[in-house]
Amino acid sequence: MEGDCRRRGRRQEAGIAARDDGGQVNPPQTSALALNLVTTRSTWGLAQAIEGCARHDIRGIAPWRDQVRAIGLKNASAAIRSHQLAVTGLCSGGRFPARTARLRKAAIQDNLRAIDEAAELSAGCLIIVVGGLPEGSSDIAGARAQVMDGLAEVLPHARAAGVRLALEPLHPMQVSIACMNTLEQALDLCDALDPGVSGALGVAVDVYHVWWDPKLKQQIVRAGKGRLHAFHISDWLVPTQDLFDDRGMMGDGVIDVRRIRGYMDAAGYAGMHEVELFSTRWARHDPDKLLKIIKRRHRRFC
Amino acid sequence: MEGDCRRRGRRQEAGIAARDDGGQVNPPQTSALALNLVTTRSTWGLAQAIEGCARHDIRGIAPWRDQVRAIGLKNASAAIRSHQLAVTGLCSGGRFPARTARLRKAAIQDNLRAIDEAAELSAGCLIIVVGGLPEGSSDIAGARAQVMDGLAEVLPHARAAGVRLALEPLHPMQVSIACMNTLEQALDLCDALDPGVSGALGVAVDVYHVWWDPKLKQQIVRAGKGRLHAFHISDWLVPTQDLFDDRGMMGDGVIDVRRIRGYMDAAGYAGMHEVELFSTRWARHDPDKLLKIIKRRHRRFC
Repeated sequence: MEGDCRRRGRRQEAGIAARDDGGQVNPPQTSALALNLVTTRSTWGLAQAIEGCARHDIRGIAPWRDQVRAIGLKNASAAIRSHQLAVTGLCSGGRFPARTARLRKAAIQDNLRAIDEAAELSAGCLIIVVGGLPEGSSDIAGARAQVMDGLAEVLPHARAAGVRLALEPLHPMQVSIACMNTLEQALDLCDALDPGVSGALGVAVDVYHVWWDPKLKQQIVRAGKGRLHAFHISDWLVPTQDLFDDRGMMGDGVIDVRRIRGYMDAAGYAGMHEVELFSTRWARHDPDKLLKIIKRRHRRFC
Repeated sequence: MEGDCRRRGRRQEAGIAARDDGGQVNPPQTSALALNLVTTRSTWGLAQAIEGCARHDIRGIAPWRDQVRAIGLKNASAAIRSHQLAVTGLCSGGRFPARTARLRKAAIQDNLRAIDEAAELSAGCLIIVVGGLPEGSSDIAGARAQVMDGLAEVLPHARAAGVRLALEPLHPMQVSIACMNTLEQALDLCDALDPGVSGALGVAVDVYHVWWDPKLKQQIVRAGKGRLHAFHISDWLVPTQDLFDDRGMMGDGVIDVRRIRGYMDAAGYAGMHEVELFSTRWARHDPDKLLKIIKRRHRRFC
């Protein structure tokens, strides 16, 4: 008994819970399910995906900018509205670090356009994938400083347009596309650029990217409702075969998605649960069958 | 100008340096080079590796326990001594989390043996790869608690044997073999289990695992001489093709190894620089040629 007490004491000092104290998490509202359209992109264009989601009663989507461009922004916006779908997020802005001032300026311009597109689509947020090391560089601190400068430049336009920017920390193995790799880092940046928590700057919590983080729960609590702009779900497979395109379906891997959803709920997040599967495996599936599987797995594991 | 000052202010708040303040780092002492024997294991057994390193004037090695077993502990110890090589670390103990109490106890026993082996080899440390989720589990907090309990059980024996345990945080993509994934997490555990910094518990800083961490420098400073037990070097390739066996040779990737070595020096680390290449690519090279390349790259990039 005493040994147990000592162990518990040590664990508390180290910020480790012997057993997570989140308790039982209720099953999700099925109406909270949304689909990131990378999941079906090998088969469905935006128009088909909108109809597909509506047909399967999936009430939210996250389109990619090239998918929007392919049918035109106004058409996309009209089609989404006519099916009364929510746009959980537009993918994506960011990619700030670059070798030259000219390239960095071009990135800023592109982000300003992305903000306008997100506004036109009434998107819940613009997902920001911040960008990695410029070609030939090994100066990760410098790249991170460029990210901060770029965000500072586009934030006023986001505020004016009423668009929420959602910084998405990517898994450290994907540092070549985003040198923002933990929630803590993203929230430090939010606090520095938007200390008043205006709502214009927050984070996207993608379980695939952050599930391993020992500070995950603590940082979700820290973020709170004011900074939690999006929640993405999938699963981590063991073994994982590819650094980018081998995400698993919820329930096929080792992420306790429901527990993390409980953290989000407890912190005040009231948005949707967006399934985002970068997966060559699932991309081969018939999208109608895939959506049925996703709905089942969402109910069971989220 | 004012804009610049504002930016600097924001960066400081967010813990981001516009340019790293480490300054110029001098080239390394070539005598500090050591070789982790995973690098040559596809061709050389322990006896050959000892002779090979001595022949190339590489003064330190880190053998694996199976390599030691293959020639016998006493023989290994004698061969290493006769060539006056330092043993930077023995690989490895750890693997604490398990499904059953019986399996966890077996892991403890194995760690006690590993400590004895490290003592016999006069190893600078026993590298601890803590282990991942037990089969069928998605309770990462629980696995981390098991790691803490396991370490608490073996630490007294390490102290008695005069063996330093070096917790090695592994890259988050390798969470299936170690659920300890940041230096901060490792140091929190050190502080909880060994608050007096007895020397028995510290960390191994492997640039491949931690280079991406925004808190890297801060945590190396925090660790200080008393907790910095080992320093492993290699490089992160872009693109990386495999989660375990595609490390790069220093200079071939995007890690600023020299800058990180500067952090280690500044924090008081006075140990060797151990090249550890898990790489199917480099494993195909003739070891004698490989060692020459390693020596050149160490001088130039470490």
